[in-house]
Parts: sequence; C-alpha cells; structure tokens
Amino acid sequence: MEEQHIASAFDRDLEAIQARIMKMGGLVEAAIMEAARALETRDEELAAKVVKADAAIDGLEELINEDAARVIAIRSPAAVDLRVVLSVMKISGHLERIGDYAKNMAKRTGVLVQGPAVADSSAALRRMAREVELMLKDALDSYIQRDAELARDVIERDRDVDQMYNALFREFLTHMMEDPRNITSCMHLHFIAKNVERMGDHVTAMAEQVIYLVTGNKPEEERIKADTTSVSPQEV
Amino acid sequence: MEEQHIASAFDRDLEAIQARIMKMGGLVEAAIMEAARALETRDEELAAKVVKADAAIDGLEELINEDAARVIAIRSPAAVDLRVVLSVMKISGHLERIGDYAKNMAKRTGVLVQGPAVADSSAALRRMAREVELMLKDALDSYIQRDAELARDVIERDRDVDQMYNALFREFLTHMMEDPRNITSCMHLHFIAKNVERMGDHVTAMAEQVIYLVTGNKPEEERIKADTTSVSPQEV
Repeated sequence: MEEQHIASAFDRDLEAIQARIMKMGGLVEAAIMEAARALETRDEELAAKVVKADAAIDGLEELINEDAARVIAIRSPAAVDLRVVLSVMKISGHLERIGDYAKNMAKRTGVLVQGPAVADSSAALRRMAREVELMLKDALDSYIQRDAELARDVIERDRDVDQMYNALFREFLTHMMEDPRNITSCMHLHFIAKNVERMGDHVTAMAEQVIYLVTGNKPEEERIKADTTSVSPQEV
Repeated sequence: MEEQHIASAFDRDLEAIQARIMKMGGLVEAAIMEAARALETRDEELAAKVVKADAAIDGLEELINEDAARVIAIRSPAAVDLRVVLSVMKISGHLERIGDYAKNMAKRTGVLVQGPAVADSSAALRRMAREVELMLKDALDSYIQRDAELARDVIERDRDVDQMYNALFREFLTHMMEDPRNITSCMHLHFIAKNVERMGDHVTAMAEQVIYLVTGNKPEEERIKADTTSVSPQEV
C-alpha cells in the first residue's frame, strides 16, 4: 500500500514535469517558425518578439531542472525511473539550446534587413527551419508516447536538413564571389543556416534520448555527420 | 556512526567523479591547444590526432554521467550534496561541447591547408584559443577549490575573447572583399573563430555553475553577451 502510494506520487510528479516539457517544446516550435518568418518577410517587430520570448523558454528550463532535482531528492527513484528523470533534464537542455539558436536567428534579422535581400535564400532557410520544427514536434511526440520507431524516423530525417545546409553553403559562396556587396549579408545568412542545422542536431540528440529511454540502448549506429562542408573543399 | 559511514562513502564517490572531471578537462585543454597549433602550422597529422582523440572525451562524459546517476541512486544525496552531483553532469556536458568544437576546428584544418593562407589570422585564432584554454584551466581550478572569486574572474575574461572574435569577424570581411579568392578560406576561418568564442561561452557557463555551487545563487548580473556582430551592421 505504501509502495503503491509512492509509485503514483512519482508518476504524478513526472506527469507535471512532462507537461512543462511539452509547454517548453511548444514555445520553442513557435520560436523557430516565427524567427524564420521574420527573416523571410524582413519583419523586425516579429524578430524582436522572438528575442524577447526566449526568457520564458529559459525560465521553463530552470523550473524543469528544479522539479527534476526535487523529485530525485524526495522520491529517490531507482533504475528506470531515475533514467526517466535524468532524461527530462537532458531534453530540457536541448530545447533551451534550440531556443537560443532561434533567438540568435531573430537577432541577425535586425542586421539583415539593413542590407540587400540575397536572392531566394531566406525562403530556403524557412523551408529548412520548417523541416526542423516538424522533426521537433515528432521528437516530442515520440518522447511522450515512448515511441522508439518515431524517434528513429526523426533521426533519419536529420540527413535532409544537413543536405539543405550543404546546398545553402554552396549557394552563399556563389553569391559572395559573384558580387562582393553580398558578403556581409551572406556571412550572416550562413550563420543562420548553420544554426538551423545545429537545431536539427539537438532534435536528433533528443530522439536518441527517447530511444535510450525506451530500449535502454544507445541508437545502433553512430549518427552520421552529414555536414560535409568541413571535409570537402570543392564547394563551389 | 551509520550516518558518518554514509557521508564518507558519498565523499569518496564524489572524489572519484571529480578526478574523472579533471582528467576530462585535461584532455579538452590539450584538444584546444593542439587544434589551434595544427591550424597555425597547417599540420594535418596533428589535426587528425585531435579529431581521433575526441572519442576519449565523449567516453569520459558517458562514464561521469553513469557515475553520477549511480551515486544518486545508491546514496540518495539531499540538498547541497544533490546539487554537487547534478553540477558534475552539467560541467561534463560543457566539457564535451568544448571538445566537439575543438574537433570541428581540427576537421576544418584539413580543408584550409588546401587553400591559400589568410594573412595572420591563424596566429590570432591561436591567441584566442590560448585565452580560452587558460580560462578553462582556471574554471576547473575554481570548481575543485570551490573558489567563487576565481570563477568570477573567468567570467570577466570572457569579454576579451568576445572582443577578439569581433575583431576577427571584421578582419575576415575585409579579406573577403579585398580578394574573392579568400572567400572560401575566410568562411571556414570565421566558423573556427565563432567556435572558439562559443568555447568561451561554455567555460563561462561552467564558472557560473561553480558560483551557484558555492553560493547557492546564480551570478548576480545577467552575463553580458559581447558578440556584437549580430546586432551592429557597421562591421567593415
């Protein structure tokens, strides 16, 4: 009876933390899409909103970490339950980093609107951001539903994001070489592209956490690093 | 008597984990300096060594996390002790990220040696990396000695690193505009500079953890983000 009571108290604690994770995830998804939209439509007001909204994401991470530490202290969870609580801290850490990248993207928008628009690259960046946002949504679903299959699918899709980044990298180099007036803008756009690619890496790490949580094993194969720009010099 | 026994068992566990943190820190310091040296001397062999050595850093992070989870499960530390164990996981996470950045830097060296050398920028990058490595050494010392004053000093010095990055950003833009043949190399060098700047941010976050650990409070003032390239468009 006593054990029953403790077990369900732990479950209730965990549900409360997971609700916060989902809330945090929703804010991060919105930040990604709004940052991408602000960039595409050159909307400084929306960009400023994204920058400001990051504080709420950071605040939720703090709360989640405090909740998790409290649950560990009070409930002394063992084995699987401890793994669940620790994974919560990892996942909130990844969400916080993705939120930071979205904020950084929005900050650069303020600079970019002061220069010339560079061809269709902001639309390509928005498509890339959209792909990452969908991956994030599925990674969060896979976490809540403990669905390792969906998590594996998310990891698979990160290759598309990496390919989109590689294509953009080549595109930016071309624009810079064609017209030096594009150089400053392309430096910032390149950073944004790399940041979106890194968001994808964090979503992938979240999905790997889910697989570890469900199966107790790390994903079978080492995740393939598909950003090839650092290893192949023949970019242009 | 029983409590005495438990307390010292916890202390022994903690010391073992902290020894691993210091070992990990030593490997990361070496990775930073060797990656910077490989870049400056265009030494592909040394760069390849840095890339390969990152696996040992990642392995230590895994071990530290497993150790920490085991200590939590077995000793059920409360309050301050729990905070210490959780901080260990944060610090090893930061070290792992810094190691990743060093690996990335070494990977790009393989590309850079195939293009022309860009003025004195790799020497400037080495100085910047050296500053970060010294900050890391002090951050680790401040952790082991629970020295909040030293940790505050580390946080202060991150501004110098940010300023070095801002100067390099302007330098790269100038080189690219002067001669388009520099564009590909400068894109990679810029990435490396940004990665070293990010290493500094992670060292700063470690120092903030130390302050939290010693004082129970987050550092007084919000850390000043001194990378101004995303907010000031007048770079050149």
